[in-house]
Amino acid sequence: MAITLYWGSGSPYSWQILLALEHKGLPYESHLLHFDKQEHQSPPMLKMNPRGRLPVLKDGDYVVFESVAVLYYLDVKYRATPIFGLTPEEGGVIMRVICEFQTYAEPALSRIVNAIFEGGVADAFEELTDAMHVVGREARTIEGRLSKEQWIVGAQYSAADMVIFPWIQLLRRALNRSAAAELGARFLPMDRNYPALARWIGRIEALPGYSRTFPPHWREPATPVVSAASATSTTPTSVSPET
Amino acid sequence: MAITLYWGSGSPYSWQILLALEHKGLPYESHLLHFDKQEHQSPPMLKMNPRGRLPVLKDGDYVVFESVAVLYYLDVKYRATPIFGLTPEEGGVIMRVICEFQTYAEPALSRIVNAIFEGGVADAFEELTDAMHVVGREARTIEGRLSKEQWIVGAQYSAADMVIFPWIQLLRRALNRSAAAELGARFLPMDRNYPALARWIGRIEALPGYSRTFPPHWREPATPVVSAASATSTTPTSVSPET
Repeated sequence: MAITLYWGSGSPYSWQILLALEHKGLPYESHLLHFDKQEHQSPPMLKMNPRGRLPVLKDGDYVVFESVAVLYYLDVKYRATPIFGLTPEEGGVIMRVICEFQTYAEPALSRIVNAIFEGGVADAFEELTDAMHVVGREARTIEGRLSKEQWIVGAQYSAADMVIFPWIQLLRRALNRSAAAELGARFLPMDRNYPALARWIGRIEALPGYSRTFPPHWREPATPVVSAASATSTTPTSVSPET
Repeated sequence: MAITLYWGSGSPYSWQILLALEHKGLPYESHLLHFDKQEHQSPPMLKMNPRGRLPVLKDGDYVVFESVAVLYYLDVKYRATPIFGLTPEEGGVIMRVICEFQTYAEPALSRIVNAIFEGGVADAFEELTDAMHVVGREARTIEGRLSKEQWIVGAQYSAADMVIFPWIQLLRRALNRSAAAELGARFLPMDRNYPALARWIGRIEALPGYSRTFPPHWREPATPVVSAASATSTTPTSVSPET
């Protein structure tokens, strides 16, 4: 059957699935949709996912969405190169780490990233500082894991890495905005504050097929926007319309 | 290997795992912990789950927590009587419905249930009414599924039923409090407003082993508290310390 992925550039949930498809070496047709043109809300997309969110994966006539469900489906359907471990025990830990990340880190990450890209840092500085503390605590736990192993769970690159990596990249991109300088002071640069996480990012960036997963709109402009005045005029990368 | 489940009475996350263990017919040792005595925060429990949340499942020396991860582990480890469907396609839908429920329904449900049991309905009435609208919308989607099939996904009782059922029971219990009468007016009685959901509840209540999963502290007092004055004096069933 032919796999088609409908996805959005910069959406961490979309990126998770791209990483999985590349790692499993599954051929897929890539449909990049443009949030700013409301392409994810078109009638054919809403027919597949009534919530109008991305990513949506179609495999022949079968449709699945919600990124963890897509990862689960791909792993059960295409068993070569497993992403939920080699044993039930390893799979349980991978799923547990994913659930913990979603419950304890994602709400804070969404809040921070959205505020930075929407230009609302100053208005919510105290709340965002608290959110950065939450993110820092979760990042230290992951740093601890990665200081002992190459990957977040055990010796293999897994769905846990795929779920967490796009969020870390999105956070780094957000914290590099000049408006977020104070907020990011204890997080960046990562090679000083989170050396094991920084090395892990490098390992994922070196994986075959990585460049096909990289958000296309992140390639332009070539240099990051540094002046506070122009920062809010760039295209916002809100994570809200995606799952 | 011997399975031990550490759980809390009334915790929907604990109830989900009890339903799965009973359905799979797996023998397990049941350790009911008392939130009011902080038993879930004891040193041996924190050693297993540093977040101090329930349920925690121990299988021999292996420990897993976060309820969806526990369901996943049990299904991969003990393949008889699958709870994630008979095919990858069915499994993808079951996981998708679970993810949707967690993302779109659970935050509103938690808010409502906690406010009712903590006696904070009047202070947040407008916000809780909005939350009830969200819950109503999600419940109508599930009602639509159950008007066509016996179970939430397809012809078999699955992890999707196990994840959603305890929340519906907890919501009904909360909305039956006199302080919640106005809030629950469009939801209760369920056999009138959500007839397919009401029949589905009856089907689960009739399953073998159901009584072993029922929250022990819900059996007392025998009759529900109806006076507003005494409602706040009963033991609160906050869902916050559990996952």
